[in-house]
Amino acid sequence: MNGVHEVRVGVIGGGQLARMMIPAAIELGVDLRVLAEQGGMSAQLAADRIGDYTDTATVLDFAREVDVVTFDHEHVPQDVLRALVDSGVQVHPGPDALRFAQDKLLMRERLSELGLPVPDWAKVETLGELDEFIASHNGVAVVKTPRGGYDGKGVRVVRGAAEVAEWFATIAEDGRPGALLVEELVEFRRELAQLVARRPSGEVAAWPVVETLQVGGVCSEVIAPAPRSAGKLADVAADVALTIAEGLGVTGVLAVELFETTDDRVLVNELAMRPHNSGHWSMDGSTTGQFEQHLRAVLDLPLGGTGSHGEWSVMVNVLGGPVEGALTDRYAEAMSGHPTVKVHNYGKAPRPGRKIGHVTATGDDLDTVVYEARAAAAFLQD
Amino acid sequence: MNGVHEVRVGVIGGGQLARMMIPAAIELGVDLRVLAEQGGMSAQLAADRIGDYTDTATVLDFAREVDVVTFDHEHVPQDVLRALVDSGVQVHPGPDALRFAQDKLLMRERLSELGLPVPDWAKVETLGELDEFIASHNGVAVVKTPRGGYDGKGVRVVRGAAEVAEWFATIAEDGRPGALLVEELVEFRRELAQLVARRPSGEVAAWPVVETLQVGGVCSEVIAPAPRSAGKLADVAADVALTIAEGLGVTGVLAVELFETTDDRVLVNELAMRPHNSGHWSMDGSTTGQFEQHLRAVLDLPLGGTGSHGEWSVMVNVLGGPVEGALTDRYAEAMSGHPTVKVHNYGKAPRPGRKIGHVTATGDDLDTVVYEARAAAAFLQD
Repeated sequence: MNGVHEVRVGVIGGGQLARMMIPAAIELGVDLRVLAEQGGMSAQLAADRIGDYTDTATVLDFAREVDVVTFDHEHVPQDVLRALVDSGVQVHPGPDALRFAQDKLLMRERLSELGLPVPDWAKVETLGELDEFIASHNGVAVVKTPRGGYDGKGVRVVRGAAEVAEWFATIAEDGRPGALLVEELVEFRRELAQLVARRPSGEVAAWPVVETLQVGGVCSEVIAPAPRSAGKLADVAADVALTIAEGLGVTGVLAVELFETTDDRVLVNELAMRPHNSGHWSMDGSTTGQFEQHLRAVLDLPLGGTGSHGEWSVMVNVLGGPVEGALTDRYAEAMSGHPTVKVHNYGKAPRPGRKIGHVTATGDDLDTVVYEARAAAAFLQD
Repeated sequence: MNGVHEVRVGVIGGGQLARMMIPAAIELGVDLRVLAEQGGMSAQLAADRIGDYTDTATVLDFAREVDVVTFDHEHVPQDVLRALVDSGVQVHPGPDALRFAQDKLLMRERLSELGLPVPDWAKVETLGELDEFIASHNGVAVVKTPRGGYDGKGVRVVRGAAEVAEWFATIAEDGRPGALLVEELVEFRRELAQLVARRPSGEVAAWPVVETLQVGGVCSEVIAPAPRSAGKLADVAADVALTIAEGLGVTGVLAVELFETTDDRVLVNELAMRPHNSGHWSMDGSTTGQFEQHLRAVLDLPLGGTGSHGEWSVMVNVLGGPVEGALTDRYAEAMSGHPTVKVHNYGKAPRPGRKIGHVTATGDDLDTVVYEARAAAAFLQD
């Protein structure tokens, strides 16, 4: 950009989350620079350079030209993050917070210390320990690799340790056995997500808790606010997320995935320390979208309001499907008759099952809003 | 951008209107390419190349790589526009429409033919003709150069032809006398603006009529919708603008500046065939912002809804002022305590009086919304 843009934010990772920071950066006059994994990625327009985010020299060199470093994903290794901090770079969220998003065992330990509601869990290092946990939990449990899982990968429901025997082998490092996380299989009515933002200087802001629908481990639909969440449920969800943001020292947007159990508990499932699929509705349905809020937070600027434009917003993901050709080829059908639906296209090749965009509808009648969002999404992907 | 973006829009001109098309283009997955007048302009991020928009070869070369050409301003000469059309380029708005935005005399003639309400006007080629018009209009009139005026330039209130004698000399071309436009000095209660959008295939959409406040000939503040406009006034304003869009064959966004006279007539003042300062509120206050709508319209896609998020939106321009330094230096003060205000920074050097950004507030109480927008703008420019 030009010399007037005196505030520069560097984003590590060139996916759709980095892409959706660009419009917010343009409006705020922030010079956003992306370190992309390769050419032609979703955030290509702001891709300042291409490089390996696991290489310390590459990341340090990228960081030298920006005021703050933030992220499209949580996969930057701790040693790279520490090197950034040691060299004086502002990193938000910082390594001390990010390690809890990078390692689910650490996360469970820390949330338990903070007294937050989590599923019953254990750290298991042997098949025997795992079978013991399963036996004491009605013969079924959820096993997770502590690192590297997302969108349902690295998560498996098991009835015997033998089903994940190969995972123990995979996670062993330097000849030492690794540990897996095992959790009770939670019986939940539905899944919720609570997004908050926190500035380095402490200010926090929370959007309303939302209901998320997963299909095959991938977020499919989000309703904001979660139906029947007014009152206590909304307060509990916000309190949990704000306690986590403060307890873990998170800066920027924090997404807390929650289970609403059949016995009406609210348990923390996963964390993401960045804008999150469950917050995409806020781009169109809230006074402040999550990408703008993330930039304000990492720049330690006053946070924006989180009031909603309509009573309801519904976001539906658009996945690459059997239809050939570009998403734009289907705009005429998807937009016709659905003028209130906002279309977001990530500029990605539409491989089957890949998130290539989303749509959001906002209004005061939930049935209408759900119908509009689903109808437009169907035209885009079926 | 990358190979997935199959829809390309070329924008001639690199100012803030082109800049504000970029976020909308990113969300729609449209590859926006800007032909900028020089480096470091407001729309720099999408500036595909730098070149002279009055040079046919430059513009043809730029247009070769896009599907549709549109504009940041109305100054591209007719011969360049015609060459684009002749070479098969989609141009929206096209030259047949744009000539009415480029020449105020042609515009007045055409609107009069269409039976639309305009101030009393005449084409004058001599000082004598002008003095005659002034004499028959209570000794005062408004003289306008037909071409090249904007933000109050090329417009003067006169009580005698001698006051604009030099204008007659300036507009003479090739030794032939030119003509000036003279209009009655309208006594107006307030100024209004009506924005509409029109697709090449005919679909139209209208936002609510807004009230605009000018200071020194430059738009200062916009209230959407115009207070006390419900009912007939809103209908009349929309009808006038839609009649113009159809009658002049406008494609894309059309802004119609209107006078509400002291005797309650609604008269057409000026036209702009592009997104317009009076429509900036729609970025934050409407289901579809004017920049998204303009892209949808020029691509002949179904138009988006024009419902409002709150009952009121107020936009206040931010002008470069006496304060030194970047707009971003003042964010902490401007945003603190005004969380509902949206800040838009054009990335321009803050020369005194230059439009360098705007803020918008939206809500259901007009007094609060006006206060919030003005307060935040004051921190940014005073």
